[in-house]
Amino acid sequence: MPRPVPPGRFAWRSVMMRPGEENSTRGVPGASLDILRNQSTTSLGAAAHMDRTQPRTVGILIFDDVEVLDFAGPFEVFASARPIDNGSGLERLFRPLIVAEEQRMITCRGGLLVQPHHTIGDHPPLDVIVIPGGQGTRRERLNATVLDWIVAQDQRTEVTTSVCTGAFLLAERGLLDGLRATTHWASIAWMREHYPSVRMVDDERFVDEGHIVTSAGVSAGIDMALHVVARLDGEATAAATARSMEYDRTSAALSPG
Amino acid sequence: MPRPVPPGRFAWRSVMMRPGEENSTRGVPGASLDILRNQSTTSLGAAAHMDRTQPRTVGILIFDDVEVLDFAGPFEVFASARPIDNGSGLERLFRPLIVAEEQRMITCRGGLLVQPHHTIGDHPPLDVIVIPGGQGTRRERLNATVLDWIVAQDQRTEVTTSVCTGAFLLAERGLLDGLRATTHWASIAWMREHYPSVRMVDDERFVDEGHIVTSAGVSAGIDMALHVVARLDGEATAAATARSMEYDRTSAALSPG
Repeated sequence: MPRPVPPGRFAWRSVMMRPGEENSTRGVPGASLDILRNQSTTSLGAAAHMDRTQPRTVGILIFDDVEVLDFAGPFEVFASARPIDNGSGLERLFRPLIVAEEQRMITCRGGLLVQPHHTIGDHPPLDVIVIPGGQGTRRERLNATVLDWIVAQDQRTEVTTSVCTGAFLLAERGLLDGLRATTHWASIAWMREHYPSVRMVDDERFVDEGHIVTSAGVSAGIDMALHVVARLDGEATAAATARSMEYDRTSAALSPG
Repeated sequence: MPRPVPPGRFAWRSVMMRPGEENSTRGVPGASLDILRNQSTTSLGAAAHMDRTQPRTVGILIFDDVEVLDFAGPFEVFASARPIDNGSGLERLFRPLIVAEEQRMITCRGGLLVQPHHTIGDHPPLDVIVIPGGQGTRRERLNATVLDWIVAQDQRTEVTTSVCTGAFLLAERGLLDGLRATTHWASIAWMREHYPSVRMVDDERFVDEGHIVTSAGVSAGIDMALHVVARLDGEATAAATARSMEYDRTSAALSPG
């Protein structure tokens, strides 16, 4: 069974808090999660859901040699999620946008050609970011412009996520320090060596540390995104989304830590 | 357990047969499959594998409002599949190409922007085609140009596949007549009504009828593509591909009829 993170908690924060306040528990390992666990926020979650007048905006970073399913899986999840009742008045719950460093065609792994919707300089405010992996992360983890952007976005997102070796880009600037995190199985050892402050986990599809959620390789991004939907909009919404995708969330996927 | 279709059977046919010969069992429901089942082709499969000097070319059709994971899942599988030994001398087993009616940006479901590699008029010969689904199939099933292209390609492919409501486009010109087939669960009843000659199946992730393999909704295209890899290049290759994607093939996915 999934960890009982109250749905809508971060929605409430984003709606009710002034800019800057949402960072008050950052940098204290486990603190934000403990706060989450110790609050009974069922009513807060419901209120947050009803208060929203716009879908959450999900910024999905891509770059040359990004792994296709790493970003396409979460894109599918966030694009498919629909309100399961009419209380919110929203037609869709998320607006996924593809973001890249430059406004040019991106050549993904295997050759898929994707045009970004925005550059990292011209996108609207992002409630969620998804940092996918792929061979391109070997280059992007040395790209200060992209890393700066990730750090800046992380200051204002409700949830910051990675898929596969996208975790490199979070770890590079210390965003995972002191936290439990995961990545593709073939990169666990490398991350343990290069980012010793990160508590790498090698037996979970995704790891939820509150503000940051990392996932294992490629297809695990689907499980991670469904989990984020569950946390923000309720398990029933996530279950309906998975059913629309005919995606079987395995017992492994449902046991994040 | 998967049905024991011998790996490499179609590879052998494509390598050894003259143009036209590969159609000799078409149009006889079940005939090609019966031939498959009655032959012991382990050695043929191995020979075919070693005889190949080029990756198989996989044409993945897209169109406006195509469902993202319907095509991105199979793309990921075919782009990821690698030889598990060096016997073939190939670096990769498949070359996935995105094909569209026109050379323009395609707006997928949810807004993803994808540039096709080829139009239906300028692509190289295709060994495998993937016809994905999504809302756009409601329009494309009335598009004679696209349907003509599918029929023409089907005459020369080793395997013709569909994901989700992509099955509409195969059924529209009778390619599924007399065959077992599947689609997204929400469209099974509609297909039964509109294509009564197709034997719709509602409890399998994908249905392999030899030359044609249809799959259920969205994520089931991943299972279908892994199955095609298993059939053409062996179960060990498909297992390695799934592991590289960290994709758990469920017991349901492994029981295709």
